[in-house]
Amino acid sequence: MEHTEEQTYHLKALELLKADAEKIEQLIKVQMDHLTLPSCPLYEEVLDTQMFGLSREIDFAVKLGLIEREAGKNLMDTLEKKLSILHDAYTNK
Amino acid sequence: MEHTEEQTYHLKALELLKADAEKIEQLIKVQMDHLTLPSCPLYEEVLDTQMFGLSREIDFAVKLGLIEREAGKNLMDTLEKKLSILHDAYTNK
Repeated sequence: MEHTEEQTYHLKALELLKADAEKIEQLIKVQMDHLTLPSCPLYEEVLDTQMFGLSREIDFAVKLGLIEREAGKNLMDTLEKKLSILHDAYTNK
Repeated sequence: MEHTEEQTYHLKALELLKADAEKIEQLIKVQMDHLTLPSCPLYEEVLDTQMFGLSREIDFAVKLGLIEREAGKNLMDTLEKKLSILHDAYTNK
């Protein structure tokens, strides 16, 4: 099936954003797998920075009309939830 | 003159990036206009964060093929130079 030029941008944008979200998820996973180690403040800083970067990419894609605002919000919400689980795991350790 | 869908995305992407670069330039300008006041570390933090955000947007647009890598680099370089002038102005005060 052929895609129009417009569909191609839409698909590629979502693909790129999902790939970046996946990288953040991996960072969270690595930290979850090492909960026995002391919490590393630098790690939180890195996660915060990456979350901010992704949110800027998502806003940009939404403004361009390449992804729906709702889809972008879902992507961020899913990560926020995982981050919050990681945070709780450290707090209740 | 009519633009194709593709051209519209290209133009809009560049427009959005330039608008964000303009915002950072304004932040630098405000700080330059108040050099007599003590340097505010929070201000540098804000500028750093905004620069990082813009760089992520630019990378995203380049990966999507919406802007040339060179155009994105020029946008960042111009801001870096202005930031460096601001930094020098504080250092030599």
